[in-house]
Amino acid sequence: MEVIRENKFDDVDSPSSVGLVETKLYTYVNPPDVMVLDSGQKISPVTIAFETYGNLNSEGSNAVLIFHALSGDAHAAGFNSRKDAKPGWWDIMIGPGKPFDSNKHFIICANIIGGCRGSTGPSSMNPSTGKPYGLTFPEITIKDMVKPQKTLIEHLGIKKLLCVAGGSMGAMQALQWIVSYPGMSEGAVIIATTPQHTALQIAFNSIGRYAIISDPAWNNGDYYGSSKKKPDMGLSIARMIGHITYLSEEAMHKKFGRKFISGGKKNKPVADFTKDFEVESYLQYQSESFIKRFDANSYLYISKAIDNFNIAEGHSNLAEAFKGIKARCLLVSFSSDWLYPKEQSLKMVRALKINGIETTYINIESEYGHDAFLIEDRKLKSVLKGFLSSLEETGE
Amino acid sequence: MEVIRENKFDDVDSPSSVGLVETKLYTYVNPPDVMVLDSGQKISPVTIAFETYGNLNSEGSNAVLIFHALSGDAHAAGFNSRKDAKPGWWDIMIGPGKPFDSNKHFIICANIIGGCRGSTGPSSMNPSTGKPYGLTFPEITIKDMVKPQKTLIEHLGIKKLLCVAGGSMGAMQALQWIVSYPGMSEGAVIIATTPQHTALQIAFNSIGRYAIISDPAWNNGDYYGSSKKKPDMGLSIARMIGHITYLSEEAMHKKFGRKFISGGKKNKPVADFTKDFEVESYLQYQSESFIKRFDANSYLYISKAIDNFNIAEGHSNLAEAFKGIKARCLLVSFSSDWLYPKEQSLKMVRALKINGIETTYINIESEYGHDAFLIEDRKLKSVLKGFLSSLEETGE
Repeated sequence: MEVIRENKFDDVDSPSSVGLVETKLYTYVNPPDVMVLDSGQKISPVTIAFETYGNLNSEGSNAVLIFHALSGDAHAAGFNSRKDAKPGWWDIMIGPGKPFDSNKHFIICANIIGGCRGSTGPSSMNPSTGKPYGLTFPEITIKDMVKPQKTLIEHLGIKKLLCVAGGSMGAMQALQWIVSYPGMSEGAVIIATTPQHTALQIAFNSIGRYAIISDPAWNNGDYYGSSKKKPDMGLSIARMIGHITYLSEEAMHKKFGRKFISGGKKNKPVADFTKDFEVESYLQYQSESFIKRFDANSYLYISKAIDNFNIAEGHSNLAEAFKGIKARCLLVSFSSDWLYPKEQSLKMVRALKINGIETTYINIESEYGHDAFLIEDRKLKSVLKGFLSSLEETGE
Repeated sequence: MEVIRENKFDDVDSPSSVGLVETKLYTYVNPPDVMVLDSGQKISPVTIAFETYGNLNSEGSNAVLIFHALSGDAHAAGFNSRKDAKPGWWDIMIGPGKPFDSNKHFIICANIIGGCRGSTGPSSMNPSTGKPYGLTFPEITIKDMVKPQKTLIEHLGIKKLLCVAGGSMGAMQALQWIVSYPGMSEGAVIIATTPQHTALQIAFNSIGRYAIISDPAWNNGDYYGSSKKKPDMGLSIARMIGHITYLSEEAMHKKFGRKFISGGKKNKPVADFTKDFEVESYLQYQSESFIKRFDANSYLYISKAIDNFNIAEGHSNLAEAFKGIKARCLLVSFSSDWLYPKEQSLKMVRALKINGIETTYINIESEYGHDAFLIEDRKLKSVLKGFLSSLEETGE
């Protein structure tokens, strides 16, 4: 979630920050109950980590569910501790006076199943072996990710959400939600995503996975325990490949160009293959911070779920898949996002409109590529605010 | 050099094939003589492998020097043996009746210094240690690559070339040639390249290098000898990343889409992270064939030379750098080449025209991305033929 332009973040005492927040746990299933996955496999227990900001109103009509992207987690806003250097991953959008306004809305964000940030995933204990799952963790899908979140919402006393929202894989979950649970959300914000990955998008993810499983330390997924080496090298490479695709050529050019790290020492007597240019050091720094907080097996399972995602699957076409949707939709793409170019959003806009679903679409001019949704952007904020207001009016 | 669309190749007996050819060796320097590199370091001996097709005419005016790209070699056309499954890497362009016409032209192609296909490179013997160079091989530049080729040309009795030509890194060498040796070529064909890498282009190469040096088998560049494991894993990843950038989204989509390898078994009980989609198996197949013929250290040195290349270096701008050029230029870009987009060619076209250099430019509509220059294309062939004819007329 690191971005090429640093956001100016609120601090914990800012009036527009949700301040200190706590990550909670929700048990979705406990033995003998089981979660039956999309693949038919069963798993239990399943716990998911979540955070909430603001309060549910007495009508239960102001709840917004935020979905995170590949590398995200439940901590979307505020600070878990006064010592945190940075707030949650979408703090620019969540808080008093922000588009997802904790003074008006009850905002929920949960870590997905398969993740490594508090929810049940490959690094969790497999109760049948007493050891971490590793590769015995079952395959998961985007459909599987939204399921425990639906029950969490009901558990929190919410019958219908005001809105679901997410970017990238988060938007895939938002799409899945409005398709799987028609009538369970008044609106949906679907940012920088696609109804299914193309060969190029699969290829980028797959090379990352290939790097992880080629790392000798990966050890067929069995690397947990303090005595074992983790597949940091493979995960670093996967992250660097991903990171490139999240940025725009323009932003990289502006920030790094061809700048050298140490004053233009281009032709050194001994070649340095990865540490001459600023862009190289940036990518390595980003991947080093990533491997500290992310599990390589989670990366495999989640990126695979993204590649397998196909909202049109089982339908003759996309419009057919969108037939039952009851939510009003806002779709957003970014002009410099070459990972999920605007054509993929437009495809969905057309399929929604064929079904007469009220749909707003905007392609925002931005130089920040795919990651633009994580960056302070006045246009995105105002579009989100407008959309949320219109949903509130309908709800009244 | 593998392409997403298979060319229909000539066989060894085709009238349009140069037929059986032999790779020869040319000794550029032998101790006590040394080659002084761009970095100031010295190296000796330096041998380069080369091939020729056709015959030099009595005036010595029909010679064409072809430069190869990152993964190429001296074997540009024809067959080294009747058993070869495929001809040289640019056979579609070189041979009787083809744009580089062995009935009319004397065509030369040499493996670059730093390479691993017959020329002196990191896998060659370091005479001062009696062992392969590995990382004791000095840093090389594009300028260093053209130097031994210039002497080779003179050695072959050529005072002035009719044309230099190349695509990608080959085109960088062509650019370097006409800048370094004004008057040494009547024309230059500069296909799908850039005057210098941007941050994005550096980033792709750098992650590949990072994968190689992170491979434990790389062993700080010391992995030669039959008893040692080679850094195949790192080189595979580097090749896969490179390969993606050589293809276009459109071509990948047409060829692979979201097709599964074994009849749509998407949700298997056990997750398979890199072997479900056809595009995944394609990338792995390509990288497996690549690691058999390429040396990982050569990949490091050559890709680094590409990142360091900056034809404008030492000049206030590109037009200034092009001031002394005497060659007539043909620049070609491809509409779907997102690695070297047409803007980078246009930058050079403008800088050439500012200097009053006769320049032809064409952006060819193609769906094959950066690799388009390696693929049968009627338009490219006819443009090359026309350009070569115009050079011949001037020469007469």
